[in-house]
Amino acid sequence: DHLIICGWNRKVKDIIQQILNENLEQEIVLIANKERDPFPDNDDVHFIKGVMEEEDILKKAGVMKARAAIIVNKEQNDAKTVLTVLNIENLNPNIYTVAEISDSRNKIHLRNANVDEIIVDNAISSQLLVRSALYSGTSKVIEELLSNESGNQLYMLTTKKDDVGQEFLDLFIKYKKKDGLILIGIKRENEIIANPDNEQKVRANDKLVYIAGSKL
Amino acid sequence: DHLIICGWNRKVKDIIQQILNENLEQEIVLIANKERDPFPDNDDVHFIKGVMEEEDILKKAGVMKARAAIIVNKEQNDAKTVLTVLNIENLNPNIYTVAEISDSRNKIHLRNANVDEIIVDNAISSQLLVRSALYSGTSKVIEELLSNESGNQLYMLTTKKDDVGQEFLDLFIKYKKKDGLILIGIKRENEIIANPDNEQKVRANDKLVYIAGSKL
Ligand SMILES: [Ca+2]
Ligand SMILES: [Ca+2]
Repeated sequence: DHLIICGWNRKVKDIIQQILNENLEQEIVLIANKERDPFPDNDDVHFIKGVMEEEDILKKAGVMKARAAIIVNKEQNDAKTVLTVLNIENLNPNIYTVAEISDSRNKIHLRNANVDEIIVDNAISSQLLVRSALYSGTSKVIEELLSNESGNQLYMLTTKKDDVGQEFLDLFIKYKKKDGLILIGIKRENEIIANPDNEQKVRANDKLVYIAGSKL
Repeated sequence: DHLIICGWNRKVKDIIQQILNENLEQEIVLIANKERDPFPDNDDVHFIKGVMEEEDILKKAGVMKARAAIIVNKEQNDAKTVLTVLNIENLNPNIYTVAEISDSRNKIHLRNANVDEIIVDNAISSQLLVRSALYSGTSKVIEELLSNESGNQLYMLTTKKDDVGQEFLDLFIKYKKKDGLILIGIKRENEIIANPDNEQKVRANDKLVYIAGSKL
């Protein structure tokens, strides 16, 4: 049930810090081709020295029993990212893979490799530059929603029995009044329905996307 | 009242497309050190050939009369970005500058240059990798909120007279019921108050941050 981080770049320290901030007691295994363990003093972070795209190394990192894997972008080399995802998903089709690439044209290769979620680093920052220039303050909103150092963040809630069949507007009002959290969408299968219609009925397997100061 | 884009990288085409998608009739001036106009057929995009950090070029791009400037990150050279912001804010302190950098340690230099908004491209994608691995679907939510190709986006609303003095919860319910939009925060001066308390009263100069399919 651990989380594997594949690859090393200067973002990895921040990534690990953000995971630890969530207080989920999430065990982390880091695969990095570095001489020494970059986190020698942290018991929750286990270090495997090696190349992320190699099957043996992935096995050594316990990929068959892992819950999720983050594959970071090394030197904008999307090919290595694609190869790593392929090997991970082959070894364990149930793992949840989140991969970062630089060129959106490589999305198709990741999809073919059965990746679960893709971050195109260039695309997000372009969109954020535009919205911040047109609607000032947008980057601060997004930073608040994504960074868990303070304030509010985005979370997902498994739908409760009592909420099944309820209209979105009713839940929207209930959760803000009672729990001080803002529902902004529904995750249905693999789709996100942002800002659902007021009358949209919530189903048993939906998740609710919300903004709050901590996990409900 | 035009918007200046300073610098050229492979994201600029996307940036310009995103601006045009908003249908704001926003005139764009692009400063890029390229032989030819990259948008010869687009009347809304004017091309100035030159180096973005040079004062003469910025003047030629009409920096004194521009509403906003986006400074993109060229080859991860944050120094050029800082220098460009310095020159722009010197020439026109009223302009709204949004700058992209790669290394968060350079934030301080941008702040000293009076930048209005900073995008650290590495930081956003790290945060998004983490939240997507922990709360699956998060990257799709953020993509939906930032990309204006379809669905919903983030917007800012100038507070209406009738709304001044109202409690956040009342406005939150009113706007979802009546206009089908979700208020998620208040922009007060340069601060973002995400998910305000239910009793928080909206003030005259506040803006309301909301999610909707189109601008109200
Ligand atoms: Ca936060
Ligand atoms: Ca959208």
